[in-house]
Amino acid sequence: MSEGPAPLARLTAELSRLPGIGRRTAQRLAFHILRADDEEVRDLAQAIVEVKEKVGLCEVCFNLSEGPRCRICEDEGRDSSLICVVEEPADVIPIERTHEYRGLYHVLGGALSPLDGVDEEDLKIAELVNRVRAGGVDEVILATNPTTTGEATAMRVAELVSDQVRVTRLASGLPVGADLEHADEVTLGKAMAGRQDLG
Amino acid sequence: MSEGPAPLARLTAELSRLPGIGRRTAQRLAFHILRADDEEVRDLAQAIVEVKEKVGLCEVCFNLSEGPRCRICEDEGRDSSLICVVEEPADVIPIERTHEYRGLYHVLGGALSPLDGVDEEDLKIAELVNRVRAGGVDEVILATNPTTTGEATAMRVAELVSDQVRVTRLASGLPVGADLEHADEVTLGKAMAGRQDLG
Repeated sequence: MSEGPAPLARLTAELSRLPGIGRRTAQRLAFHILRADDEEVRDLAQAIVEVKEKVGLCEVCFNLSEGPRCRICEDEGRDSSLICVVEEPADVIPIERTHEYRGLYHVLGGALSPLDGVDEEDLKIAELVNRVRAGGVDEVILATNPTTTGEATAMRVAELVSDQVRVTRLASGLPVGADLEHADEVTLGKAMAGRQDLG
Repeated sequence: MSEGPAPLARLTAELSRLPGIGRRTAQRLAFHILRADDEEVRDLAQAIVEVKEKVGLCEVCFNLSEGPRCRICEDEGRDSSLICVVEEPADVIPIERTHEYRGLYHVLGGALSPLDGVDEEDLKIAELVNRVRAGGVDEVILATNPTTTGEATAMRVAELVSDQVRVTRLASGLPVGADLEHADEVTLGKAMAGRQDLG
């Protein structure tokens, strides 16, 4: 009983499984949900279920998508001669927020890290090479994280496509060891504007 | 598109409504949920819905309960001659965790705060007086928060029942201005053990 009625304890336990949510925070959230009005709670539960049901990966760029192709790939106003390569779907959001970039994306699904068992075939690298080979691409911008694994991934991708296309890397300006997902818009915009030739 | 597909943006927005969850945290949680396995996500959504559906208030003590009476009121091993009065259901949890207390509870549903429109009739004070009048109670332990409103509430309750029953207040030991919900077990256990006569 020390954690309250079973459904409350269960909700606290489920919330504790979320990253960065400790037991006390989970308990506070659980009490909030218990006291919140029915509509807010129903909306939250539905949003949780729907995000899993409705969001998949784009068949072209492997970004998150509600349909077979994501809204960026389907947007004819975007510059299809530019492909910005990122590790995760979450990395697309801060780049979009800079409003500095009007090209397409390619989401690798991670970074090369052989020690963690992430090899070339675990990422969408072959699919990127195929997109470049299909033609119409002038530049591949490598926007993997400025970390050891992100740099290694950028180097490997550059090796594979630099004979066919211009390859650039986001300018320094991102502090080394930082996570692209949390970069502020100004820094990231500058890094995009000052990108350097790599291959 | 800058926040990703609509269901992801919607989930981020819903999570942002939770207390203490900012936009960045909400986005991080939304991505986690999107990547989590189906079972974890289903369990979380179900726990959210069920806590609202299944948890009500105990008809005796107004603590949270799955049935008409809470598990503490139904537990014949508890000492029914002791009633510990707290502001909120969340306050029962840390007291139970001390393992110092084997009596029953009475949850007022808040503290007196006329400026915020919380008057005596908004709290379960009359219900407490009735429980005391019904007999069998030897002591009422006032465990409202050590704040201005919590103290005022304790004083008012003491006025109403001290002619019929021993009334005690949690010992000092809780720092003034603190919130009982977040007290550590040792401090709270000491405060319980050293409770003082009030009425």
